[in-house]
Amino acid sequence: MAKEVTNKEENYSQWYNNLVVKADLAENSAVRGCMVIKPYGYAIWEKMHAQLDIMFKETGHQNAYFPLFIPKSFLSKEAEHVEGFAKECAVVTHHRLKVDPDGGGVVVDPDAKLEEELIVRPTSETIIWNTYKNWIKSYRDLPILINQWANVVRWEMRTRLFLRTAEFLWQEGHTAHATSQEAIQEAQRMVDVYAKFAREYMSMPVVVGHKSESERFAGALDTLCIEALMQDGKALQAGTSHFLGQNFAKAFGVQYANKEGKLDYVWATSWGVSTRLMGALIMAHSDNNGLVLPPKLAPIQVVMVPIFKTDEERAHILETMEALKKEMEAVGLSVKIDDRDNLRPGFKFAEWELKGVPVRLAIGARDLEKGVVELARRDTMTKEDVSWTGLAAYLKELMDVIQKNIYDKAFEFRQANTFKVDTWEEFKQKIEEGGFLLCHWDGTAETEAKIQEETKATIRCIPSDTFVCEEEGKCIYSGKPSHRRVIFARSY
Amino acid sequence: MAKEVTNKEENYSQWYNNLVVKADLAENSAVRGCMVIKPYGYAIWEKMHAQLDIMFKETGHQNAYFPLFIPKSFLSKEAEHVEGFAKECAVVTHHRLKVDPDGGGVVVDPDAKLEEELIVRPTSETIIWNTYKNWIKSYRDLPILINQWANVVRWEMRTRLFLRTAEFLWQEGHTAHATSQEAIQEAQRMVDVYAKFAREYMSMPVVVGHKSESERFAGALDTLCIEALMQDGKALQAGTSHFLGQNFAKAFGVQYANKEGKLDYVWATSWGVSTRLMGALIMAHSDNNGLVLPPKLAPIQVVMVPIFKTDEERAHILETMEALKKEMEAVGLSVKIDDRDNLRPGFKFAEWELKGVPVRLAIGARDLEKGVVELARRDTMTKEDVSWTGLAAYLKELMDVIQKNIYDKAFEFRQANTFKVDTWEEFKQKIEEGGFLLCHWDGTAETEAKIQEETKATIRCIPSDTFVCEEEGKCIYSGKPSHRRVIFARSY
Repeated sequence: MAKEVTNKEENYSQWYNNLVVKADLAENSAVRGCMVIKPYGYAIWEKMHAQLDIMFKETGHQNAYFPLFIPKSFLSKEAEHVEGFAKECAVVTHHRLKVDPDGGGVVVDPDAKLEEELIVRPTSETIIWNTYKNWIKSYRDLPILINQWANVVRWEMRTRLFLRTAEFLWQEGHTAHATSQEAIQEAQRMVDVYAKFAREYMSMPVVVGHKSESERFAGALDTLCIEALMQDGKALQAGTSHFLGQNFAKAFGVQYANKEGKLDYVWATSWGVSTRLMGALIMAHSDNNGLVLPPKLAPIQVVMVPIFKTDEERAHILETMEALKKEMEAVGLSVKIDDRDNLRPGFKFAEWELKGVPVRLAIGARDLEKGVVELARRDTMTKEDVSWTGLAAYLKELMDVIQKNIYDKAFEFRQANTFKVDTWEEFKQKIEEGGFLLCHWDGTAETEAKIQEETKATIRCIPSDTFVCEEEGKCIYSGKPSHRRVIFARSY
Repeated sequence: MAKEVTNKEENYSQWYNNLVVKADLAENSAVRGCMVIKPYGYAIWEKMHAQLDIMFKETGHQNAYFPLFIPKSFLSKEAEHVEGFAKECAVVTHHRLKVDPDGGGVVVDPDAKLEEELIVRPTSETIIWNTYKNWIKSYRDLPILINQWANVVRWEMRTRLFLRTAEFLWQEGHTAHATSQEAIQEAQRMVDVYAKFAREYMSMPVVVGHKSESERFAGALDTLCIEALMQDGKALQAGTSHFLGQNFAKAFGVQYANKEGKLDYVWATSWGVSTRLMGALIMAHSDNNGLVLPPKLAPIQVVMVPIFKTDEERAHILETMEALKKEMEAVGLSVKIDDRDNLRPGFKFAEWELKGVPVRLAIGARDLEKGVVELARRDTMTKEDVSWTGLAAYLKELMDVIQKNIYDKAFEFRQANTFKVDTWEEFKQKIEEGGFLLCHWDGTAETEAKIQEETKATIRCIPSDTFVCEEEGKCIYSGKPSHRRVIFARSY
């Protein structure tokens, strides 16, 4: 089964596409650019969703739900925002179909044209700030700390499963504050939540930093992000958190009375992560045998495969497995017994490797005599015999070991592929090999644009953690003075 | 605060609208027919969602996600289906806006017209069965037991918060089976899950039954439903489960090879409940003081209000409350201390009554001396003093008492408003007073239509539980022979 997946060294992009489909995560649908998220892929997303939701609530946020549609005129109210989204949005123009009088099935009913077109939300700042206008009168109504789990649509021309799709699932936080300082703190708090989630749950090292001005969200004064390095040396932006200043409050006339009764515009943030995280998770850890899932996000943590010749052996082994499964579930592990009778063990092994299940346990007739299981780790592809006694406790601890090992491996990869580069010649050579290039930059959008034009590399972020970048130097491109390094890379 | 809510005896419809808005559950948005679900309302929906999701998984279902958009041609493939939904759907015709060359802001870019229009899903049978076509080859691929949590759009002309909105949130199960019998069992299993959820979590008595042919889902061979009686005597359909036969399998060409290798079309069900349940919950239990929430769905189960004159008293009371809160949380209660310093206790009492919190605890200076709290129940509006000692355990048990009491009250209401009616004269009079009317009907669509025309009453269901309806009699309208009674009522 895993043999059908292209080797990643041969064609990384095709390896990724193969893997997503073969591991039953997602597939393309009949609608251009829209994906079907299959049960196994959705189960991983559910785990991400559940954990992020806990972390949002721990930081004081509540969920709410706002309309799917945005009146066209709302988009125009914030100038940069409309420029950022107008070119890729799905537009609803009619509200009825009718039977074609010429016999061509159903057609759009021209009498059902909307007075104002509706945009399927590409993001919800405008509809939400139009709502907040009615919720905010005084400082006592602030802060508003709201998150929404929703689907959004951006009509991308080139799409890839999870990484860039016309419709995707995400969460978008939208907060309102009395002061600039409080909003800035909130934007920082949430990017830190994303970093913690990426590191501790996805086992994925990330750099937290600020975007350069040209890479900011349309309408933001500052965009914070987490950036991860994929195994092909390309960077992936995994989450963003925006300080929006008073832009949306001014666009929608949202003012509050402070303690002295004076009116001022409200300060805003927004922040989001999406099903793109699924793409990041896959590309950060997987190999030519398939997915490698960190235990905290694995829908199945332990799979058990019986190996037998006779029906009697099968019955004994399954009985033992059921007993062991109960013990494992009692310590909080999620366990599956693969008792399908029409498939050989070898086929099952390959399938669960493809699906990235952290631990596989096999029991054959001889293991039954000895009271052991053959334990295979997906992350290291190593095997060992382990006694039934204390197995559950052993596995419980092993999950933490695996979770950390997957992180460490990705961390070492990033360390080995991060370079301080100080000359333009070296930059042009290194960028072809991939990785994070820590370079001096003169801080101008012109230089940034030229570097991108010549090498397809962009500034992934101006790091605020992970790397110490403050030092004097000279821009690799213009030679002008610079006070800190930034991360350049090619990216998804 | 609660005083702003219209009395339900005066104007039930306005009482409902008032309550939804004043209790901070939802409000109308700038987009016609689309609502904003506010944090307090969404928190109730989250609890419904979480519990239903557990029940779906217990019955073997997995979640997945399918596209928001449906190609126009898909809708037409099942004849009844398109007739049911074509008249009320949002149609996406373009994928880009551009700056108006005549200076009118942004306009739809005529060059970005889609080749085929996309419908925003009103329900997902068509896109899902088009997907299942690729998933199903043999009997080994069956059953497929999938559920989707999603938003859907039906362009209703007259909308009401939660009860009928252009966009709503729901879940839709879509299952595929090898035999007719298995699909019929699945449809029954899921309507029973809905009934259990309504009864045990919403404290809402429901009748399970079959819809008459004219009330069936567009494309179904049989529609099962749960029907509840609201306090104004109108019925509300709270969930449906459909046996779809082979209609969608035939429309999308989905066949499987059975054990003998013979091809046959696959059998289907679909089933759903939506944010309409919020409307049912509100209308089933609430009163002129506001919401009455069953403890299992209340975001806050216990609210504590301090009553003090001095800062010192306040500090002592809050300290006691924090300690009690910890004990309550340890037994699994969700507790809030309302320590807002700018509002009087009386105002807070009214606000939490409005929001339906099951139990309110007040502590004043004298209670502090005596070691008691004043406990007020929302369902009975009664008060008693209760000792701090053992308070958490007492409250834990009280939640079950309240949960049951709310059910019993609704049950008694329904009992008192269900009538066997045997003459047309009596029917015409009784239907004005509201309630479930158990009547004989001759089984024809003509009679059903005439009764509706003359009285606005419809057949809510042909009960399969709750009421014993099998008996010989004569149709109240036509006088023709009938073998069982059915439920007539006016409805939402």
